Amino acid sequence: MTDLFWPGDERAGDVLSDAALLAAMVDVEAAWLDALVAAGIAPPEAKADLPGLVGAADVPGIAAAAEAGGNPVIPLVALLRERVGADAVAARWLHRGLTSQDVVDTALVLGIRAAARAIRQDLDLQVESLVALVAQHRDTPMVARTLTQHAVPTTFGLKAAQWLAGVLDAADAVARLRFQAQVGGAAGTMAAAAELAGADGARRLAAATAERLGLEDVPPWHTTRTTITRAGDAAVTATDAWGRIANDVLTLGRPEIGELSEGTSGGSSTMPHKANPVLSALVRRAALTTPQLAATLHLAAAGSVDERADGAWHAEWATLRTLLRRTCAAGSQTTDLLAGLRVHPDRMRATLDAARDDVLAEQRSMAALAGADADDDAHPDYLGTAGPLVDAVLDRARAHLEETP
Amino acid sequence: MTDLFWPGDERAGDVLSDAALLAAMVDVEAAWLDALVAAGIAPPEAKADLPGLVGAADVPGIAAAAEAGGNPVIPLVALLRERVGADAVAARWLHRGLTSQDVVDTALVLGIRAAARAIRQDLDLQVESLVALVAQHRDTPMVARTLTQHAVPTTFGLKAAQWLAGVLDAADAVARLRFQAQVGGAAGTMAAAAELAGADGARRLAAATAERLGLEDVPPWHTTRTTITRAGDAAVTATDAWGRIANDVLTLGRPEIGELSEGTSGGSSTMPHKANPVLSALVRRAALTTPQLAATLHLAAAGSVDERADGAWHAEWATLRTLLRRTCAAGSQTTDLLAGLRVHPDRMRATLDAARDDVLAEQRSMAALAGADADDDAHPDYLGTAGPLVDAVLDRARAHLEETP
Amino acid sequence: MTDLFWPGDERAGDVLSDAALLAAMVDVEAAWLDALVAAGIAPPEAKADLPGLVGAADVPGIAAAAEAGGNPVIPLVALLRERVGADAVAARWLHRGLTSQDVVDTALVLGIRAAARAIRQDLDLQVESLVALVAQHRDTPMVARTLTQHAVPTTFGLKAAQWLAGVLDAADAVARLRFQAQVGGAAGTMAAAAELAGADGARRLAAATAERLGLEDVPPWHTTRTTITRAGDAAVTATDAWGRIANDVLTLGRPEIGELSEGTSGGSSTMPHKANPVLSALVRRAALTTPQLAATLHLAAAGSVDERADGAWHAEWATLRTLLRRTCAAGSQTTDLLAGLRVHPDRMRATLDAARDDVLAEQRSMAALAGADADDDAHPDYLGTAGPLVDAVLDRARAHLEETP
Amino acid sequence: MTDLFWPGDERAGDVLSDAALLAAMVDVEAAWLDALVAAGIAPPEAKADLPGLVGAADVPGIAAAAEAGGNPVIPLVALLRERVGADAVAARWLHRGLTSQDVVDTALVLGIRAAARAIRQDLDLQVESLVALVAQHRDTPMVARTLTQHAVPTTFGLKAAQWLAGVLDAADAVARLRFQAQVGGAAGTMAAAAELAGADGARRLAAATAERLGLEDVPPWHTTRTTITRAGDAAVTATDAWGRIANDVLTLGRPEIGELSEGTSGGSSTMPHKANPVLSALVRRAALTTPQLAATLHLAAAGSVDERADGAWHAEWATLRTLLRRTCAAGSQTTDLLAGLRVHPDRMRATLDAARDDVLAEQRSMAALAGADADDDAHPDYLGTAGPLVDAVLDRARAHLEETP
Repeated sequence: MTDLFWPGDERAGDVLSDAALLAAMVDVEAAWLDALVAAGIAPPEAKADLPGLVGAADVPGIAAAAEAGGNPVIPLVALLRERVGADAVAARWLHRGLTSQDVVDTALVLGIRAAARAIRQDLDLQVESLVALVAQHRDTPMVARTLTQHAVPTTFGLKAAQWLAGVLDAADAVARLRFQAQVGGAAGTMAAAAELAGADGARRLAAATAERLGLEDVPPWHTTRTTITRAGDAAVTATDAWGRIANDVLTLGRPEIGELSEGTSGGSSTMPHKANPVLSALVRRAALTTPQLAATLHLAAAGSVDERADGAWHAEWATLRTLLRRTCAAGSQTTDLLAGLRVHPDRMRATLDAARDDVLAEQRSMAALAGADADDDAHPDYLGTAGPLVDAVLDRARAHLEETP
Repeated sequence: MTDLFWPGDERAGDVLSDAALLAAMVDVEAAWLDALVAAGIAPPEAKADLPGLVGAADVPGIAAAAEAGGNPVIPLVALLRERVGADAVAARWLHRGLTSQDVVDTALVLGIRAAARAIRQDLDLQVESLVALVAQHRDTPMVARTLTQHAVPTTFGLKAAQWLAGVLDAADAVARLRFQAQVGGAAGTMAAAAELAGADGARRLAAATAERLGLEDVPPWHTTRTTITRAGDAAVTATDAWGRIANDVLTLGRPEIGELSEGTSGGSSTMPHKANPVLSALVRRAALTTPQLAATLHLAAAGSVDERADGAWHAEWATLRTLLRRTCAAGSQTTDLLAGLRVHPDRMRATLDAARDDVLAEQRSMAALAGADADDDAHPDYLGTAGPLVDAVLDRARAHLEETP
Repeated sequence: MTDLFWPGDERAGDVLSDAALLAAMVDVEAAWLDALVAAGIAPPEAKADLPGLVGAADVPGIAAAAEAGGNPVIPLVALLRERVGADAVAARWLHRGLTSQDVVDTALVLGIRAAARAIRQDLDLQVESLVALVAQHRDTPMVARTLTQHAVPTTFGLKAAQWLAGVLDAADAVARLRFQAQVGGAAGTMAAAAELAGADGARRLAAATAERLGLEDVPPWHTTRTTITRAGDAAVTATDAWGRIANDVLTLGRPEIGELSEGTSGGSSTMPHKANPVLSALVRRAALTTPQLAATLHLAAAGSVDERADGAWHAEWATLRTLLRRTCAAGSQTTDLLAGLRVHPDRMRATLDAARDDVLAEQRSMAALAGADADDDAHPDYLGTAGPLVDAVLDRARAHLEETP
Repeated sequence: MTDLFWPGDERAGDVLSDAALLAAMVDVEAAWLDALVAAGIAPPEAKADLPGLVGAADVPGIAAAAEAGGNPVIPLVALLRERVGADAVAARWLHRGLTSQDVVDTALVLGIRAAARAIRQDLDLQVESLVALVAQHRDTPMVARTLTQHAVPTTFGLKAAQWLAGVLDAADAVARLRFQAQVGGAAGTMAAAAELAGADGARRLAAATAERLGLEDVPPWHTTRTTITRAGDAAVTATDAWGRIANDVLTLGRPEIGELSEGTSGGSSTMPHKANPVLSALVRRAALTTPQLAATLHLAAAGSVDERADGAWHAEWATLRTLLRRTCAAGSQTTDLLAGLRVHPDRMRATLDAARDDVLAEQRSMAALAGADADDDAHPDYLGTAGPLVDAVLDRARAHLEETP
């Protein structure tokens, strides 16, 4: 996939692409049909290689036919029945006991899982990059800035440790995601499945389907959308962390500041000398858009009603897709940004030296308060506890990496 | 275009599709090159049929190459130069004096114009449908509901007149949109163009380019993004109006109420009897998502800085695309919804009759206040000024239709 | 009013404060009662000085009692009846023919009008400041920056002209607002008023009420909320313009850049040397929050249903209040920011000189294309058409000021 | 506190009120000063009863003075110094080593903790109510509705079990919140504190301060705002759950449906018969507004830059306040709503009976598929696995209640 309106989209690969959604929906139908056959509910002849029957080429047709029923499952099931042969036993058993929402919701969860894996992988790579960066610059002095103005001395290690803390927070949020199948039938009672297999049998079918898909088996959550909103919130927690990094790179990479720069910068269509911090700009772009997408997921969750919402449910799909693809792409861009980041300690020192008189003002007033002289040479403490604070974040990061498989 | 995650997307046709954006960017390059030649700045041999050189098949390549520079214009210009031949005069003159932002922004405006035309056409069709519906049911009594409960009598004509007022408000907002070319060169000074053609000549080139594209010629607006936000706000004003209609159809179409129903309803993947109000649900879906997209456009506008923003600008493109395509699709769906809407005056009357005792309580207390009896037969005024209020909205609608070409 | 969580809130004065809302609601009740008496519907003894009966001290009681009915009108009317005396003729006639929504909605419109006046006044002051600033610096050279990097030469006049264009766009949006009374009775039919005064009489009462309040008389818009959303969109258009100015001041005011600075800067609680660009930071703050508030207004509009929505209506009030108060405060802060803004042409020139080699690269390639030398001395056109573009914006601004009363 | 624009606000009590924020800021200053004295850094004479020195009456003055420095800490510290006496030892030691952000951020965390406690208490009460409701109606049949239309039979117990699952999800999110002190000094290095107490001493001061406030001691998080965004996301998870409940009560409480009703309903200002589902409407109101507020918190987090952001930080305070107060109020309203909820099994049965022919269509087709007759009498399974699914949610709820202190 590519997207002319969103440069870098291809970094998200096939995550929640049209083709991936179609494949995921077919996987859900296949897992259910297999479970029906394995349980002896459907006869052995009902077996069919559903994933082999449809593919990316069928997307436009299914998508165009989806509006009539409001979702793509109805045309998908019709197509599957046509492909297995209208008279085939599989055609009769396919989808029996499921409802459209089971298929769409579980397919979305498969998409969330794919996105979460990609995001997590990037977060872990970033933790590694940042651990190295932070350790290397643990004691690299630079000026701290608050409200854009020079404040006091700090270290680049401490700044990057804040970046790292944000990345770890995001990794925690992503690690907490759970991937839960949704199998409830027409309205969450599994009535059709129970008609076929009895009440206990129906629950066993749901469990077997979840297991085949590698998902958790839980009661239906068709109108309780926390599964969706949690994924959205975790994704935004990640783009928050990356946006914050990008802001620093953009700011400190201004030519007048020059303390950081991107490893490989973008060119201009008309100005040969330009070296633009493109990755940072694109990451910042993502972080400007994802919070509102997650808000839409919450609005949809809060708009749930009855046993299936009249529009709120439908609003989730594309919103989740866009949110997670942008997060995947921004994650990959941030990984590259950090891997290639150039730190310019000389410029940091020069800025700090030029500002020294100002930025030690606080320190001098403290020294006076403590009844001491603020002796430049004798007080390495101008950096306060920066070092130990850096170490505390590094410890957290190393513990994270050890827990990561 | 279709979108498996957004059933009905194909109703938006090619509006702001990848292919349409590419074609629009090429149109901008072509208009500028033509203007250079026509003004005698570039030699006659620089002419080239740019639109014939690239097409939809080039989208993936350009999109994938867009990340390096942060936008698709750099690879597009490279491709155009390659296609006209590296040695061709056109290759040397192509894009000279423009910057990426000129091309992207003006192409977006062409996309906005296409969307606005489609939306306006649907709004006008809806005005026509609603005028007929309102006129037909000017005096069809039904119960009014406030906070979900029966309030007092009203007419369906008055309810639909409120729908109509919303649609007219949206039409006003869309009609006020202006379509303005953005030609400013690298940073809005037109320095390169002025180097080639002098200051006055540069302005004439911009004017000629705008004219060729059928756009307004205005000073560059590269960091003042009202052109974009106005389009977003107008689109949301439309989805607001449609969402409000959909809500009424969904509510009054509940089987227990049954006062309205969709002309053609959607089926279910498992329940043969279901007749779902699919169009309404999908329109409602859109209206839940567009406000946050417009908010993102505003955040991007407010995030403008320098002579080109470092991410805020980039956040606009896909957001605008999604917002306008959803608006186009919802507009078309609402047109169909209104065209097929079934009104059930008998159910309206039955509900009103059953609630009569309650819903006339206010009237009786007013009659007592006025020292009169509240005689059911003698007081057609229980509908108050519903009729004249309906007529006032109809007058506004007819005036709108007369002004519409 | 002050707000510990929103420094600067007091700049919004009494706009949409609790006390102002209460007063506005009472004004609506008074205008209606006066109209009833003037029309001879209510007897002369029904006259009462309602505004004299309640005041800011009554806010907590009314607010606490508002939840029971979902809005503050029920306890307000009860209090007014108690204050005029339960036996008074006025007590019987008060509010007769109105509904809560009439009172709240029309009071909100009075609040919108007050906010719009304040915002417009600030926008006009800003236009004046900016016209002077732009004219003064029409030819002050500085480096243009795109994606944070030096691009080509520009003038500070042209940058500020972009600010001015944004402010003018906002002024246009605010000028287009209309202030419309909402008088429809229980469900928009004016049934109660018509019971008292006949259908025509009811419409005359509405018109008289609107006239007394200085508002436009239009059909009820209880479920078509464009009046509210338009106000929100206009407010955000203003904060967009101001946020963009603040971003430039914050960026160019960084000590390493130093091309702009705030006239009076804020101090620090611990660092004596700090001079923080507080106004800019606070304006930027506002611009980060208003788009989502306006989105909520749109969601509420799109959530309208029946003849009064079951929550969507209620969501508007505080959202509108917060949005408009923040806009008023940010407008006032921006006026001060512009009035005190310090421009440092020497720093601008120094940056440009240092970057000259780079930022003229485009120009040299253009000169080569045109077969000319890029002679630094002979080509004042390096600033392209900056001057005439500045003049075009100044012309627009002066036309605006002439139209302004 | 009351809020005329947000009926029910007083239910949030003093949570994050102006007075509570002031008190919390003073508590932070006091804890730090105590720690300084206890550690022997400041002399014993520096002790002072700071909380006794300022109070709610000081709010307007501090708020009005807050704009100059951009936050309320500077005027607060000045006032505290004045109140202890300019010559007092406490005046010299007060706030030494802290920065404004330490005080504001830690005070916000105290506010988050107060809100979380209130929200959690309501969530637990709701779990109790819902466990009883679900158990009571485990087998109460009703019609399930999807896309507003009758689907298949279900039970009210299963519907309410979905409500319960949402409430439990929210309780999980709130339970995961951590309350972390922010003590970093001017730029997160604790340089001033280290000047006074050495690097290790500085960290011990931070730990002692956190302990005095009952907060977690962690490295400074001044530019990594997950502490804030997590609180926002948890709050919205709660309003999502409540909004979904409110939607069902509003829908099923429509007079034509009548299957649920609020225990105590609101009246009308003009219609004596009205019994409005006011609590549900007000809860729904909140759920429409909170997602966009949480999005603003994320935007602010993603907008962090340098060692203190230039506006993004400032945007958090009021947004968090509004979001958490609305959540507290909605939580309390939902608790009341559930406690008073009236279920009408007779109406549920009547609707189901009337719809029986339709809603058993799926079942009949399943029975045919299974080669069986769909015998109404013999197949209690029409409710599928509703009962066991209800039990699974009840088990989860009971486990939650047991874990709750």
